[in-house]
Amino acid sequence: MENKKEVLLEFSMTPLDKGESVSHYVSRSLEIIEESDISYRLNPMGTCIEGSWDEVFDVVKSCFNKMREDCNRVSVNIKVDYRKGKSGRLESKIRSVEKKLGKELSK
Amino acid sequence: MENKKEVLLEFSMTPLDKGESVSHYVSRSLEIIEESDISYRLNPMGTCIEGSWDEVFDVVKSCFNKMREDCNRVSVNIKVDYRKGKSGRLESKIRSVEKKLGKELSK
Amino acid sequence: MENKKEVLLEFSMTPLDKGESVSHYVSRSLEIIEESDISYRLNPMGTCIEGSWDEVFDVVKSCFNKMREDCNRVSVNIKVDYRKGKSGRLESKIRSVEKKLGKELSK
Amino acid sequence: MENKKEVLLEFSMTPLDKGESVSHYVSRSLEIIEESDISYRLNPMGTCIEGSWDEVFDVVKSCFNKMREDCNRVSVNIKVDYRKGKSGRLESKIRSVEKKLGKELSK
Repeated sequence: MENKKEVLLEFSMTPLDKGESVSHYVSRSLEIIEESDISYRLNPMGTCIEGSWDEVFDVVKSCFNKMREDCNRVSVNIKVDYRKGKSGRLESKIRSVEKKLGKELSK
Repeated sequence: MENKKEVLLEFSMTPLDKGESVSHYVSRSLEIIEESDISYRLNPMGTCIEGSWDEVFDVVKSCFNKMREDCNRVSVNIKVDYRKGKSGRLESKIRSVEKKLGKELSK
Repeated sequence: MENKKEVLLEFSMTPLDKGESVSHYVSRSLEIIEESDISYRLNPMGTCIEGSWDEVFDVVKSCFNKMREDCNRVSVNIKVDYRKGKSGRLESKIRSVEKKLGKELSK
Repeated sequence: MENKKEVLLEFSMTPLDKGESVSHYVSRSLEIIEESDISYRLNPMGTCIEGSWDEVFDVVKSCFNKMREDCNRVSVNIKVDYRKGKSGRLESKIRSVEKKLGKELSK
């Protein structure tokens, strides 16, 4: 059960004590995501990853452990969409909307 | 002040009373977004739009007004990132992370 | 339609450029909420308000307009729960859970 | 490090395939939270819990494992506020705002 990739998770993670430019810290998270085996898509407001519950939350925890090494306050937003028996949704959810509208959308 | 496109907003909007497949309702929102003048990017977990505070929230409200026509319960998640004096961040935020890492990322 | 208080909205609003202690800025938002006519409940992670769509978003906008006076980067999280024909949910949602469990919960 | 209660987490968890009334499912989560040792506060839009990263995420996972037993699609929203060296914030964050404003607020 645990190995099915039924969980889509989007998250953003930001230090509050490093000033208004935080891309240095975001980049470190993306490096961790890239080096993991997880499927992901970066968007302007967060990163979507896909896997089992444990797989996706392990990635979020790794990013957090890195960030708390040198950040005193960290804010994390996580949104989970679980759907039984469905995987590959990192791509299929967008395609499904495009198919319904009969046109390609900005991604 | 109001006309500067300093607000990035990501949102997702879902009916709770229409069963597990909601792409019909998501598609209607994307149609509204497409027909507005707003810059947007669809991702697997939501849609990012860019504009002034009023511009982006007007789009969200239009999608909501459509959805409540035939949905009894609606859940909306909104995340706003405002940065004074910055626009074009629908593209520049991702580029900034890619530049720091020196490679292209999955988007 | 607009005057029915069918919208519950929870939000948190944080500057990213003011260091790790942000209660000064949170307090200003609560002052604005207190001075408005909106029904609200403060919790450790945000504030829940209840009203029509326009009423609740006007309050959020007022808080934002105050915050951007002296903050360069502001992060806002908003969660909306709309339910047709229901109001008074600032209290009834908790009571409904307590009733189902047959005991009082920590609030 | 792991045992410090430096993480505040608010979450809400909702099935999408059970119709507009979901308090039955929310109650089951609150039962799990009550039976764990975690400190919590229920609010109209979610539940705040406090502990280490692993403690709070274990609770969320337990609620999820219960919900997916009989729900095909589940939506989860999680917001984390980590602050190094601070605990007891389930109460102190609200008190800090009240102190700054010099009055008691609705909670």
